[in-house]
Amino acid sequence: MTEPSGGAAVGGGRREPPVFEDRSTRKRRAVVEAATELFLQHGYAGTSMDQIAAAAAVSKPTVYKFFADKEQLLAAIVLGTLDRAGAPFLTALTRLAQTSRLDHDLAVLGRHYLQTVMQPRVLQLRRLVIGASHDLPGVARAYYERAPEQTLRALADCFGKLAARGLLRIENPDAAAAHFAFLVLGRALDKSLFCGDHPFPAADLTAQSDAGVSAFLAAYGRPPG
Amino acid sequence: MTEPSGGAAVGGGRREPPVFEDRSTRKRRAVVEAATELFLQHGYAGTSMDQIAAAAAVSKPTVYKFFADKEQLLAAIVLGTLDRAGAPFLTALTRLAQTSRLDHDLAVLGRHYLQTVMQPRVLQLRRLVIGASHDLPGVARAYYERAPEQTLRALADCFGKLAARGLLRIENPDAAAAHFAFLVLGRALDKSLFCGDHPFPAADLTAQSDAGVSAFLAAYGRPPG
Repeated sequence: MTEPSGGAAVGGGRREPPVFEDRSTRKRRAVVEAATELFLQHGYAGTSMDQIAAAAAVSKPTVYKFFADKEQLLAAIVLGTLDRAGAPFLTALTRLAQTSRLDHDLAVLGRHYLQTVMQPRVLQLRRLVIGASHDLPGVARAYYERAPEQTLRALADCFGKLAARGLLRIENPDAAAAHFAFLVLGRALDKSLFCGDHPFPAADLTAQSDAGVSAFLAAYGRPPG
Repeated sequence: MTEPSGGAAVGGGRREPPVFEDRSTRKRRAVVEAATELFLQHGYAGTSMDQIAAAAAVSKPTVYKFFADKEQLLAAIVLGTLDRAGAPFLTALTRLAQTSRLDHDLAVLGRHYLQTVMQPRVLQLRRLVIGASHDLPGVARAYYERAPEQTLRALADCFGKLAARGLLRIENPDAAAAHFAFLVLGRALDKSLFCGDHPFPAADLTAQSDAGVSAFLAAYGRPPG
């Protein structure tokens, strides 16, 4: 039993264990899952490599075989979670540049974006990394580059293409990307950082995203007619 | 010497000591300032009431005379900082409803808003509270209600009045308030939570705020002519 109980209930960005997995991969996964639970429960500073090894049911040298230190382990957890959580959204975003139904597809993308960012595991790690950013600036910067910054760049690229096709009126794709992002995410994401234990109803998230997309199209869409 | 050295250099929402201050008020202020420095340097969990008393050069019973426990001390620090930092902005916002130069005054307000939120001391406490929100949900919720939520309500109130005067086209003032807030704050505030040691140049903040206000007016302003 290397899988910590209760982990599967958290949801949000967790990887399904593959059907075939060698011994080393299985142990690495046990370490990552045990460390994630411990970091989220007791904080980064409140968790030791000894506790992680015990919770993963592996030896301490095994933990160090995979991760040189606790900071590298946290970085691997954070970046792995972000990559798994964000990949479907980034794929959908790439397709948007070819849309023939901009209003509809942008609304679908907005909902997808907000759902991606509001996954419980993603939010938990966001709070953890922000709180640890004073002591671990490298991990915090890596988080920022891997998630918000990469997404803003992909949005700017997509909006530039849509403007070139005449579907949006945009002079500064970088500014438009940030406007789309925070019109869609703003209120719920900000509130979730402080009031994380009270998740938003799905209907509220849909309404927030749709209102954000409408405002974006009012500002940047083609005039009617 | 009850004033911790280096505190004055941090800036952002610190209260100037009044000219006349009785002994009790002076001691309370010393406790608050010492605790603020220690919390920001070593984290909430990493700071003890003993250390706070020593740094403030007061006895431990004196600390407990003012604050029943460490959580109440943090709450007092956070809410006091937010109130002092936010008051000038909320006053300016109240005046905006009577504006006769909407575009100009909204741009001024946007810059003021972003500067208020991006004060180093305010950002430091925001990160601290987010990181501690798992263990101290009451403090985190109080932060949210005192700062973002109160501001969004005041913005919605102002925009409702401006819409009633025919200066904005707004069906849902709450949504419009969130859109204004996150168009203006979004990118810089989000980045600052992760990359706090690399502050934005003032010109970048001005450009971000102005672009956000322009997008807001494009979405919600009266059509020209």
